[in-house]
Amino acid sequence: MNQLHHIIQPIESDLNRFNRLFDETLTHPNKLLNVIFEHIRQHRGKQMRPILLLLVAREFGVPTEATYLSAVMLELLHNASLIHDDIVDESDERRGQAAVHSEYGNNVAVLVGDFLLSSSLEKAAQTGNLRIVEHISHLGKQLASGEIIQLSNTYEDEFSEDSYYDVIKLKTAALFSSAAEVGALSVAASEKQVALMTRFGSLLGMCFQIKDDIFDYFDNPQIGKPTGNDMSEGKLTLPVLYVLRTKANDRIKNLARRVRAGLATTEEIAELVQFTIDNGGVDYAQEVMQKYADVAVAILDRFKNEEIKQSLLSYIKFVSERTI
Amino acid sequence: MNQLHHIIQPIESDLNRFNRLFDETLTHPNKLLNVIFEHIRQHRGKQMRPILLLLVAREFGVPTEATYLSAVMLELLHNASLIHDDIVDESDERRGQAAVHSEYGNNVAVLVGDFLLSSSLEKAAQTGNLRIVEHISHLGKQLASGEIIQLSNTYEDEFSEDSYYDVIKLKTAALFSSAAEVGALSVAASEKQVALMTRFGSLLGMCFQIKDDIFDYFDNPQIGKPTGNDMSEGKLTLPVLYVLRTKANDRIKNLARRVRAGLATTEEIAELVQFTIDNGGVDYAQEVMQKYADVAVAILDRFKNEEIKQSLLSYIKFVSERTI
Repeated sequence: MNQLHHIIQPIESDLNRFNRLFDETLTHPNKLLNVIFEHIRQHRGKQMRPILLLLVAREFGVPTEATYLSAVMLELLHNASLIHDDIVDESDERRGQAAVHSEYGNNVAVLVGDFLLSSSLEKAAQTGNLRIVEHISHLGKQLASGEIIQLSNTYEDEFSEDSYYDVIKLKTAALFSSAAEVGALSVAASEKQVALMTRFGSLLGMCFQIKDDIFDYFDNPQIGKPTGNDMSEGKLTLPVLYVLRTKANDRIKNLARRVRAGLATTEEIAELVQFTIDNGGVDYAQEVMQKYADVAVAILDRFKNEEIKQSLLSYIKFVSERTI
Repeated sequence: MNQLHHIIQPIESDLNRFNRLFDETLTHPNKLLNVIFEHIRQHRGKQMRPILLLLVAREFGVPTEATYLSAVMLELLHNASLIHDDIVDESDERRGQAAVHSEYGNNVAVLVGDFLLSSSLEKAAQTGNLRIVEHISHLGKQLASGEIIQLSNTYEDEFSEDSYYDVIKLKTAALFSSAAEVGALSVAASEKQVALMTRFGSLLGMCFQIKDDIFDYFDNPQIGKPTGNDMSEGKLTLPVLYVLRTKANDRIKNLARRVRAGLATTEEIAELVQFTIDNGGVDYAQEVMQKYADVAVAILDRFKNEEIKQSLLSYIKFVSERTI
């Protein structure tokens, strides 16, 4: 059962239709491809993006063929991006399972990601809506450049919160923003409504990523990632960036530089994590996240469909309070 | 100077315009991305696909904005595919230079390829022609699945020429076929003309790949690849597949199996290469290639623009007789 069960109630049949189309798309005569597709079909994740897209579509109209195609398009792009990101970050697990590259090798994972990216584009073309096609191409560039900028930052000796926000806008918020925007576009909502949904989705994406980054400061057996996982990949996220700006002495700054350069030991990472928690970095990030959530909630005031509005309120609550 | 100088004479200004658009597309504010793009701009390769596309466009009409956008779209997809294929094949060199993954690491190469793939799609969207968009998405799937099927074949104990043809159709001929097809589509050629160009491009692509595979049986300092490079990657191509079907004893078959499994020594690969040459494998592949070339030449009889026809005759000659 989907962990967001009560949230999806108003779009249960829409989500089923999405899932049928998703499954149909993920089949291939080649055995190796089909085994990997089967694995993706079996481990769907939380489906945050298609759920958002379908809820927004129901607020502004009745889902069309283009709605379902767009939802599949975004979920394919998301999966392609996860498979490639796991290669980039050398992450061996995804959704509690072996990552594609760990199980089948980098070469297969690169190609499967490419295949999914092209399949995503194919769904965009099938909508017959050039704006949706432009949208997905722009989004693909954003996701890749977000990760590249993050890699480049690894070598910059600067603890900038701005560049943190730039990166999460590109690598996470852009996908949520697209889901809400395309949901509205696909049911021919007005330009004003579409623009509002772009903003709404972006706010949810920012929340989602900041929450995700906060997880990294605590043991979390449910997610299956150890504390300091991001730091061990050389990534400094909002909580530590805040304390580096406001509370850190030279020793801690040098420690952070070692982390970013990938030179820190497990003990040093543990020390930086603890320093961040003790100096209010996590609390600060939590507050920032809450502000994004509050603005998103305020946008919901303008929604007309009460059932959808309640679902999206729960959605925001889930994003900002989730433990998985 | 482009090595195909006399071939490009009728489209010299078209090719310049293509190159300007290609250069404009390959820029990015991020330093790392821009350094890599600069490298791609400096090492353009032979530009076989845009040249074909532009020649075909000139045969059937006057190149439009969609023609240039499509040419850039295909060249971006081709470059994305080369960067990813070099990761997959663990090839350290490309066009006499370090491959992107060798110079910047697999993680950067994965993301740069993704960025180029999405940029390719963006150009497709800019043509405003949904058929071209559908086309590029289908092509992206073909390129990725061709490589995946080739990887899967590594584990199949069968020396099938059919599966060789299937793979090269997907991974090479599809791109040439697209170049010719989209060249015709972009100047609103008739359905019949478009279909003929699809076939024409495919024939050229088959020639190009078979010739490429023949190179592997000889020392070729110009290309910078040692003899038996494909075999050292576990790939059995047309020349050896022919002798395996017609001339091989059990010892040679077992040797071929060791090659495919990636277990053969340099000496064993040299032996299989020599056996293939001695038993007419290369001559056979040369004949097959020539048959494809002859059919392509016959199609040129229907061309109306004499200058374009002569250029394409030279193009076919170059593809089938090239030493680079």
